[in-house]
Amino acid sequence: MKVVALAGGVGGAKLADGLAEILPPDSLTIVVNTGDDFEHLGLHVSPDLDTVCYTLAGLANRATGWGRADESWRFLEALDALGGPTWFRLGDRDLALHHERTRRLAAGESLGDVTRDLAARMGVKIAVLPMTNDAVRTLVLTEEGEIPFQAYFVAMACEPRVRGFRFSGAETARPAPGVLEALAGADVIVMCPSNPWVSLDPILAVPGVRQAVGRGATVAVSPIVGGQALKGPAAKMFREMGIEPSARAVGTHFEGLIRGLVIDVEDAQQAPSIEAVGMRTLVTRTVMKGRRARRRLAEEVVLFGQQVAR
Amino acid sequence: MKVVALAGGVGGAKLADGLAEILPPDSLTIVVNTGDDFEHLGLHVSPDLDTVCYTLAGLANRATGWGRADESWRFLEALDALGGPTWFRLGDRDLALHHERTRRLAAGESLGDVTRDLAARMGVKIAVLPMTNDAVRTLVLTEEGEIPFQAYFVAMACEPRVRGFRFSGAETARPAPGVLEALAGADVIVMCPSNPWVSLDPILAVPGVRQAVGRGATVAVSPIVGGQALKGPAAKMFREMGIEPSARAVGTHFEGLIRGLVIDVEDAQQAPSIEAVGMRTLVTRTVMKGRRARRRLAEEVVLFGQQVAR
Repeated sequence: MKVVALAGGVGGAKLADGLAEILPPDSLTIVVNTGDDFEHLGLHVSPDLDTVCYTLAGLANRATGWGRADESWRFLEALDALGGPTWFRLGDRDLALHHERTRRLAAGESLGDVTRDLAARMGVKIAVLPMTNDAVRTLVLTEEGEIPFQAYFVAMACEPRVRGFRFSGAETARPAPGVLEALAGADVIVMCPSNPWVSLDPILAVPGVRQAVGRGATVAVSPIVGGQALKGPAAKMFREMGIEPSARAVGTHFEGLIRGLVIDVEDAQQAPSIEAVGMRTLVTRTVMKGRRARRRLAEEVVLFGQQVAR
Repeated sequence: MKVVALAGGVGGAKLADGLAEILPPDSLTIVVNTGDDFEHLGLHVSPDLDTVCYTLAGLANRATGWGRADESWRFLEALDALGGPTWFRLGDRDLALHHERTRRLAAGESLGDVTRDLAARMGVKIAVLPMTNDAVRTLVLTEEGEIPFQAYFVAMACEPRVRGFRFSGAETARPAPGVLEALAGADVIVMCPSNPWVSLDPILAVPGVRQAVGRGATVAVSPIVGGQALKGPAAKMFREMGIEPSARAVGTHFEGLIRGLVIDVEDAQQAPSIEAVGMRTLVTRTVMKGRRARRRLAEEVVLFGQQVAR
């Protein structure tokens, strides 16, 4: 059994962690969004790769959804006293990861190679791949102009109204080594409950990925539950794009691409209208509170994927 | 009364601190060696500027002689776990200074401007100037080849035998704005008890500085006491350069440049032979243990400078 999961940040990392619990290491590959990557203080920061790796390594901060548990802020406090930029919160231990990644990228290694090695040093046993080794940068088109993702997401707290998205560099990016191979060989492809607009669409924008995902036994887990996003701006983005946020809206977003959508029991009544779009549905509890819930959802999602594969 | 002090690391910073205690802020300028500066983890590190600023701000770590008091090492521990380079010890709070300096230099500011502002934010009230805004790099010529200073000093623990020194870039460097003006307007110029070979000689190698120092009422404080350096490799360097380390050797090193040399009571018997080289001597206790000792030595040195000025 080979499973590939496409993941962004928190929600994606949680399901990836559940999958890692139920599958042997060599059965699972996580392909991670790097559209959020940016340069800050001269460092190459990869927020989604870090959230996935920290989560899989058991190092993630569950309260914040980003960064490391047992973190300290001495660097940032000292930087603040010196008048430096502190809008992006870099913990003392987290900072080491960005430094080491940056050092090795500057030495000529690829993001994929660096990620593999650093993840292994953190104790991650499964393959975590960036969607690409090339620079793809998510830009949020807003009423205030085109804003780099982290500036929109962190500094501006997602306040500007969204009109669209652009994945700069995606046209010429190549999937990272292993991505297309993993997708082609997958028995089940899982689109984790990550933000469709800014976590999954950037991955799909890398040439060849959408086609490979469309050819597979692909199921998605709706990140919208009861019309709300569990975390982050997904619901707000649907609304500002003129779409009522719902599990059904997620199904429509991925229409023609996925064979099944996992929706929450709270949204059970939407199942018929989602199936009308041309995909099967699995109704279950999708909110992952605790590791047992991650594991249970992962089991159900993989079974569902095996069903839609037939 | 205008006093200019030339300083390297620990010993220089201590005397600079004593001078700052006894003089009004606008009477004192510290010109600091930047030959030790280097790039590490993509950061511009200025060890001597930092030691001087931390000391003047009351933030210095007195036990180590470098870095900040009340420091933590979470970044470095995490970097070590990731396999990153940890030979140069960067504390969590210290790291903020290197980051902010690097960020502002990359934005086009000069080292002098950045130093002035960051020192002020630390609470330093006197002028601290880098010797130059240009890149001058101290290279240690050893039996194992030409070694960048920090690699020699930190990574190799000063072990290779020294054959000479080179201050790469010095020929074309310009003194930082304010340096020559301060020297020309100084009533007393103090060469702090810093390493003559690698702390003071780089400053003197910046075009125009040696001449300005030679024209002034300049006194030096011997960093060699009883044939030993209080800290660092100065005595070892004298020996490997074929010179018996002594206060007299320091006087000879600066022959023709300084009008007076302050030596320790322990070396009192060398006074006549030093005066024979053509400079006056002040014999006093030069080992600064505690702030009172810094202040007392500073007072004596300034008085001595005023005497040699006549």
